[in-house]
Amino acid sequence: MTATAERQDQDPSESTMTTPRPRPSFPLPIGLLAVALAACGGGTNPSSGGGGADVLSLMRARGLSEADVTAALKTYTPSGKHDEYLTFASGGHGGNLIVIGVPSMRIVKYIGVFTPEPWQGYAYGDDATERVLDGGNRFGKRVEWGDMHHPALSETKGDYDGQYIFVGDKANARVAVVSLKDFMTRQLVTSSLIQSDHGAAFVTPDTDYVIETSQYPAPLGGGYAPIEEFNEKYRGAAIFWRFDRQRGLIDTAKSFAIELPPYMQDLADAGKLVSDGWAFMNSVNAERSYGGNLEGRPALEAGASQGDMDYLHCINWRLAESLVKAGKTRTIGDMTVLPLEVAASEGVLFFVPEPKSPHGVDITPDGKDIVVGGKLDTHATVYSFEKIKALAEAKQFAGKDPYGVPILDFKASIRGQCEIGLGPLHTQFDDQGFAYTSVFIESVIAKWSLKDLKVVHKLPMHYNVGHICAAEGDTVSPDGGYLLGMNKWAMDRFTPVGPLLPQNFQLIDVNGAGEMQLLYDMPIPLGEPHYAQMIKADKLKTIEYYSPVGSNPITHEKDPEATLAKQERVERRADGVHVWMTAVRSHFTPDTIRVKEGETVHLHITSVEQAHDATHGFALGSYDINLSLEPGRHSNVRFVADRAGVFPFYCTEFCSALHLEMAGYLLVEPKS
Amino acid sequence: MTATAERQDQDPSESTMTTPRPRPSFPLPIGLLAVALAACGGGTNPSSGGGGADVLSLMRARGLSEADVTAALKTYTPSGKHDEYLTFASGGHGGNLIVIGVPSMRIVKYIGVFTPEPWQGYAYGDDATERVLDGGNRFGKRVEWGDMHHPALSETKGDYDGQYIFVGDKANARVAVVSLKDFMTRQLVTSSLIQSDHGAAFVTPDTDYVIETSQYPAPLGGGYAPIEEFNEKYRGAAIFWRFDRQRGLIDTAKSFAIELPPYMQDLADAGKLVSDGWAFMNSVNAERSYGGNLEGRPALEAGASQGDMDYLHCINWRLAESLVKAGKTRTIGDMTVLPLEVAASEGVLFFVPEPKSPHGVDITPDGKDIVVGGKLDTHATVYSFEKIKALAEAKQFAGKDPYGVPILDFKASIRGQCEIGLGPLHTQFDDQGFAYTSVFIESVIAKWSLKDLKVVHKLPMHYNVGHICAAEGDTVSPDGGYLLGMNKWAMDRFTPVGPLLPQNFQLIDVNGAGEMQLLYDMPIPLGEPHYAQMIKADKLKTIEYYSPVGSNPITHEKDPEATLAKQERVERRADGVHVWMTAVRSHFTPDTIRVKEGETVHLHITSVEQAHDATHGFALGSYDINLSLEPGRHSNVRFVADRAGVFPFYCTEFCSALHLEMAGYLLVEPKS
Repeated sequence: MTATAERQDQDPSESTMTTPRPRPSFPLPIGLLAVALAACGGGTNPSSGGGGADVLSLMRARGLSEADVTAALKTYTPSGKHDEYLTFASGGHGGNLIVIGVPSMRIVKYIGVFTPEPWQGYAYGDDATERVLDGGNRFGKRVEWGDMHHPALSETKGDYDGQYIFVGDKANARVAVVSLKDFMTRQLVTSSLIQSDHGAAFVTPDTDYVIETSQYPAPLGGGYAPIEEFNEKYRGAAIFWRFDRQRGLIDTAKSFAIELPPYMQDLADAGKLVSDGWAFMNSVNAERSYGGNLEGRPALEAGASQGDMDYLHCINWRLAESLVKAGKTRTIGDMTVLPLEVAASEGVLFFVPEPKSPHGVDITPDGKDIVVGGKLDTHATVYSFEKIKALAEAKQFAGKDPYGVPILDFKASIRGQCEIGLGPLHTQFDDQGFAYTSVFIESVIAKWSLKDLKVVHKLPMHYNVGHICAAEGDTVSPDGGYLLGMNKWAMDRFTPVGPLLPQNFQLIDVNGAGEMQLLYDMPIPLGEPHYAQMIKADKLKTIEYYSPVGSNPITHEKDPEATLAKQERVERRADGVHVWMTAVRSHFTPDTIRVKEGETVHLHITSVEQAHDATHGFALGSYDINLSLEPGRHSNVRFVADRAGVFPFYCTEFCSALHLEMAGYLLVEPKS
Repeated sequence: MTATAERQDQDPSESTMTTPRPRPSFPLPIGLLAVALAACGGGTNPSSGGGGADVLSLMRARGLSEADVTAALKTYTPSGKHDEYLTFASGGHGGNLIVIGVPSMRIVKYIGVFTPEPWQGYAYGDDATERVLDGGNRFGKRVEWGDMHHPALSETKGDYDGQYIFVGDKANARVAVVSLKDFMTRQLVTSSLIQSDHGAAFVTPDTDYVIETSQYPAPLGGGYAPIEEFNEKYRGAAIFWRFDRQRGLIDTAKSFAIELPPYMQDLADAGKLVSDGWAFMNSVNAERSYGGNLEGRPALEAGASQGDMDYLHCINWRLAESLVKAGKTRTIGDMTVLPLEVAASEGVLFFVPEPKSPHGVDITPDGKDIVVGGKLDTHATVYSFEKIKALAEAKQFAGKDPYGVPILDFKASIRGQCEIGLGPLHTQFDDQGFAYTSVFIESVIAKWSLKDLKVVHKLPMHYNVGHICAAEGDTVSPDGGYLLGMNKWAMDRFTPVGPLLPQNFQLIDVNGAGEMQLLYDMPIPLGEPHYAQMIKADKLKTIEYYSPVGSNPITHEKDPEATLAKQERVERRADGVHVWMTAVRSHFTPDTIRVKEGETVHLHITSVEQAHDATHGFALGSYDINLSLEPGRHSNVRFVADRAGVFPFYCTEFCSALHLEMAGYLLVEPKS
């Protein structure tokens, strides 16, 4: 019984509240679990040592299989224990970013990005966040939602560094910067150059650039051209947004774009290590179909699927950068653009054919290979960067596209193809030399060896898996262990909630060299994630409160209007009534605000709290204003008191036993 | 080994994909679990039958205690198995409703209610939902968020019937109706009578009325009065919104309100069974303090806490209804109001003193008792409806308040008090005669016997528990089994996500007559829930698609503009360009829309899908429009094409392998 005694010495219940960081995955003879328990746990008298029977009782009562028990114990995260990883998933047309703990699969936060969000006080009156959202205005007008597609964590030397995350908005061609210091959106950028994006956001290995590639071709700069002039006047583009890490902001003045032919550019990925300095994106619709199904032309889905091959775009962005510096550009709208003819002739842009309807493009951790999945194909095609580079340098072209872009020979560019099943999309990687590819139509994830390009296991998914996300999966050193399947349809998986269903994230134990094991089904209750990235949680260094007291949450500096205790006051100025307020448990000071109908009111409110989780809110009834005042945060609000009456304001976060009494009145005296 | 053989016959892995419905809770000798496993599972050779050791390995690796293993197996819900209960939690100042599966604690849906939500196409251009939101306009202006507090499921004979859920917006004094047929918000109502609410929404036992009670007193009807005239001109009110179940809508014309003194009315509950026809609400601030901490008056938190007693409001709403029918009312703003003096003199309104700073008021399942918790008190006070009714009928009053409302004697009105700990708030009930009270300051849930008013167990909560929610807990027949603690602070419970933290829902096994057991910590990633109700999932009869094809999701009838296949067309009319479109995998018809700058565009789009989960979206870039087109749903959108250019539109739901190609162009030709 020595072994048993040792086990008791390591009583698992002794573990502290700090985050446990076990290896997430280990092989387990699961097939024997219940049998063993049954064999030894048959007694009904608890004192006979038959406690194993209780597990069986629970299994029977709740319909759990042996694999379920293993999965439950691999994912259940007790009160106060922290998750090992955080996954950042795009919220799709919800316009927000979803933060999920792994392995518990609990959503720990939704971050408002493209869509205003009142709980976070994001663009519900708070001036700093209103300005962030206005950074994404299109044609001078506010857009209050986005279709968030691909999140990209900031990287240092090809590894996630936990500082920032970038996301793209497909619908309105925008990119956002979110700080992981406080999980706040701090910048939106957009360019009139393009009207939609899809290959966004992807970062270069040191986050010098955030890549945004257009999806649906349109006249560059936002102008009009008849659709019949599609081939001549419609274009794609890849924008390289320059990231200033010091300021934590994209520097639009130092950003540039590369003009592309009017194919539908799709996903993108940046080269790394040997392929650093290059970017890769695929495209569909080499046919240049543009729909017209009520005008005698084929619908886009049919028109774009006529040919057998589309074009993988290989872009030498470091060369492009030097050509931009050399001034070989023109300005289109608000953007510095490297023209297509320059990119094609100067060795910036090369095409390699790729099989039918390509979607995902993913660079292997060593930077040597580029894996492409074709939605209507049955292969994962593995391109060799070395071969592509050699062909490009030797100017050994198989031809040119109608816009003069050199085309490399398909067979000469690939290392091989993995026979994978119908509808491969996206590929992720582990630390054991395996690749994982989602297979949409077959509805499985295929695990295959990067060495010999052979499938070793397929795991059914429920249903129609789109993107997948591996632990640190886009870095130069993936962790293995966990893989997330992001399924597009949920169907019967969860309790019905009406015609609009959640999507289904399935957590998988990739299990070293063995077969994958399904661990958990997780509904996505809001939004439609497209892609996600998973980072080791201890890489993040978040703050607990804003310091100094009175900080602007975007600049992280003391706001000029910050108010400390005893500084509260009301002043009438030329531009209206200014009120400097503080919030602390359980009152605002002042709590009575007297104005006249029609006056402009400026509220400057500082939360003077510094206690962890001591957040206040500030709601002004009927005026569409709500602020979130985390400890130390300062907010400025301006509004016109255009309605006479008595308007209560109050704290919207349950902050203390006297929270309900944390209230006051805005008294708007009528004009007459 | 007969017992073991029987167990194997009932192989739990045989269970089908349909929802298992075991009793959620059963006593388990958990203390013996790991010991037993260790004793029998010491072998390291899997074939020796030592599989139990694997559970130990997992426990050790992940720091799981015996109680954790039990909790994991009581909550883990395998792929395809459905949850037994659905919990509907308010989203607080997120303005949305959160739907959570129990026991898995997975969020299955966020429902947009007071806040526009683009994933659901809720008020992002879709005309039907825009009109729903406009129903909640205040002073003629759109309010785009709400502070949702208390959800109330529709009831039939005091039992949840799974048809509708109602919620209140504290900030803007509104009530919403959500249909559980499709989890869609179908109505917002508001009245200029009051400026905020808190006791909302609560329903009468057959959902004749939805109750909304004001929180912060103000001049009724939205007018102005100096705050110095607080006692004379500021008032509270309880609105009884009449629900027309046939139409599934509140009938504002048949609704009425009762004027109340300017105390801060707080939570409410409707009587049931013996107390049917009555409603109860408590109040704070009998002191009638109104703040003024920069004007020499005490802050509200101090001013409202000076006295020892506040007033439980006992309202005979059935009598009020008959007085309203008899015309003893006046009209204030848009509301029919029973004046305070009528309510006080005609036997509609009685007060009973209640201990310091009352918050929760909850009627026992049998309707006989009213349980009140005082935030600064240490008791749960149990009032007897029989005693209150007898005193009221005998007109045996201990006095009157300054507004003439009869006050009943405290001691003569109560059945007793349960000594419960500092800061009791809310009470829920089970099927075994126990009550459960959240104790905010002590940060525990107390389980106590309704029979002898004695505490039997206290369970620590993390941290500062607010509302609690028991399975079918507000009905005449609670289920027992599960209890949810809704904690206001999370602090260290989850991986840090910046200064603004999730809240922590803790699921508890109430465990019959035994001690409560903590099962699960669940972060709330968006919003700040106040209250929740938990309903047996099989009571809900949701639809999978809208039928007939072309249904308006609010009326559930065929929209006049519904478009079937082959009916697609474009017409120019006096009011602009009308486009009748269909959506089906994987195209819109038409996919090319040609208009002139400045023209008004009317899109009438029908999803002609009828397959489960075949949802499409419709996004129009840069125009702030996104629709959700669930199968069979029709949407109308109107906008002015005020910007010349080429604007892609596309499907925002990943609907098929050719989803990316489900796109088209809006071509806006310049004027000149």
